[in-house]
Amino acid sequence: MPLSTADKEFEKQAQALGFDFNGEIKIGGHYAPVIQHGNEVYVSGQIPRVGDQVVVTGAAGQDVTLEQAQLAAKICAIRALALLRNQLGSLSKIKQVLRITVYVHSAHDFTQQSEVADGASDILFRVLKEAGRHTRTSVGVAQLPKGATVELDLIAAI
Amino acid sequence: MPLSTADKEFEKQAQALGFDFNGEIKIGGHYAPVIQHGNEVYVSGQIPRVGDQVVVTGAAGQDVTLEQAQLAAKICAIRALALLRNQLGSLSKIKQVLRITVYVHSAHDFTQQSEVADGASDILFRVLKEAGRHTRTSVGVAQLPKGATVELDLIAAI
Amino acid sequence: MPLSTADKEFEKQAQALGFDFNGEIKIGGHYAPVIQHGNEVYVSGQIPRVGDQVVVTGAAGQDVTLEQAQLAAKICAIRALALLRNQLGSLSKIKQVLRITVYVHSAHDFTQQSEVADGASDILFRVLKEAGRHTRTSVGVAQLPKGATVELDLIAAI
Repeated sequence: MPLSTADKEFEKQAQALGFDFNGEIKIGGHYAPVIQHGNEVYVSGQIPRVGDQVVVTGAAGQDVTLEQAQLAAKICAIRALALLRNQLGSLSKIKQVLRITVYVHSAHDFTQQSEVADGASDILFRVLKEAGRHTRTSVGVAQLPKGATVELDLIAAI
Repeated sequence: MPLSTADKEFEKQAQALGFDFNGEIKIGGHYAPVIQHGNEVYVSGQIPRVGDQVVVTGAAGQDVTLEQAQLAAKICAIRALALLRNQLGSLSKIKQVLRITVYVHSAHDFTQQSEVADGASDILFRVLKEAGRHTRTSVGVAQLPKGATVELDLIAAI
Repeated sequence: MPLSTADKEFEKQAQALGFDFNGEIKIGGHYAPVIQHGNEVYVSGQIPRVGDQVVVTGAAGQDVTLEQAQLAAKICAIRALALLRNQLGSLSKIKQVLRITVYVHSAHDFTQQSEVADGASDILFRVLKEAGRHTRTSVGVAQLPKGATVELDLIAAI
């Protein structure tokens, strides 16, 4: 079966970020990466992890630049899409992304959380086009698991 | 067509806060202020912005008082209602607010996030009466976009 | 009517944590502890409060250990379940927990938010078995209401 436009664009964006997202995404404990209920799908919080390594860590505006934080947000978005593709078979089944919440590990005086989140929004729109438009909340947090710079979670309609 | 009770109360509360919320609410990038899916509506994170200006900035308990932070929460709630009114035509279409999350930019030792969020809850109840009752989460974050003191997002049923 | 397996396990876990969760859970203001809409139930953010007292306060990694923070997360999860039991009559009506968000009041360099959240995930799985599997987001925040170490909110399908 040929890949859908969304699936092709996903692979292109994932490759542009330099990563192979076809490998199994590890997740531990009694929780699930994705849960589908009716026509809604919830995706657990994603950090910019590639394989076993978190590739962007530290506080935005202190340890990492805006551009590095945006890259982290892009990787989080690609991971969320990879999980959705695993779950649904094809990203073309997504009707609309309803919500993303973007948590940015922020230095005390860093106020560009929206600009960081633009990295994630951009990936969703490139891959899913109009179905990738979403509501968004971006906030600056004190820390994130494993010192990650960004964490992103998502709810989508299928 | 005469305004509904909810729409009238909205205008009264908006005026009481000293602002004209009929102007277009600017929003940038590839995300949407509101997305409707079935009978649920998601509203993006709102900061206390009026026109081009964020009117309450800084950390609660350090740069701003509890009262100022509560005012910020009220403005966020009014903005969320303004967006819902634009989307739905009338606030009387809201059946129930399901969830608000209130992020409070907090000084290290500021623990009155619930009291800040009361400002938002109060507006929702005044405007929507029983339909404005909601579940709520309020947390203290390290920073917020543009240095805002409060950010609020919302899910409602219609 | 005999208690369901989930309700029995709930009581066992609540007792293991040393608390009586049958008392009314106090909540103030114009918001609700639980709101049900169609087959979804939203639960407001819970802190590790027992009666009138928040039993675990302070920043994880500074004022409290990982183990104490995990205990806080367990109590938050038990409280959420107690509210769901009050609302639904029996926990056996829960079809699936869809999402938990776990906010951990964190010292600057504390990065074990996922490990803290495991305390909550563990309780949900013990009480609800497969219905207790959920998507999860855990983040490190600057402060929480009343100085609590953990706050948890939840969405479930019934």
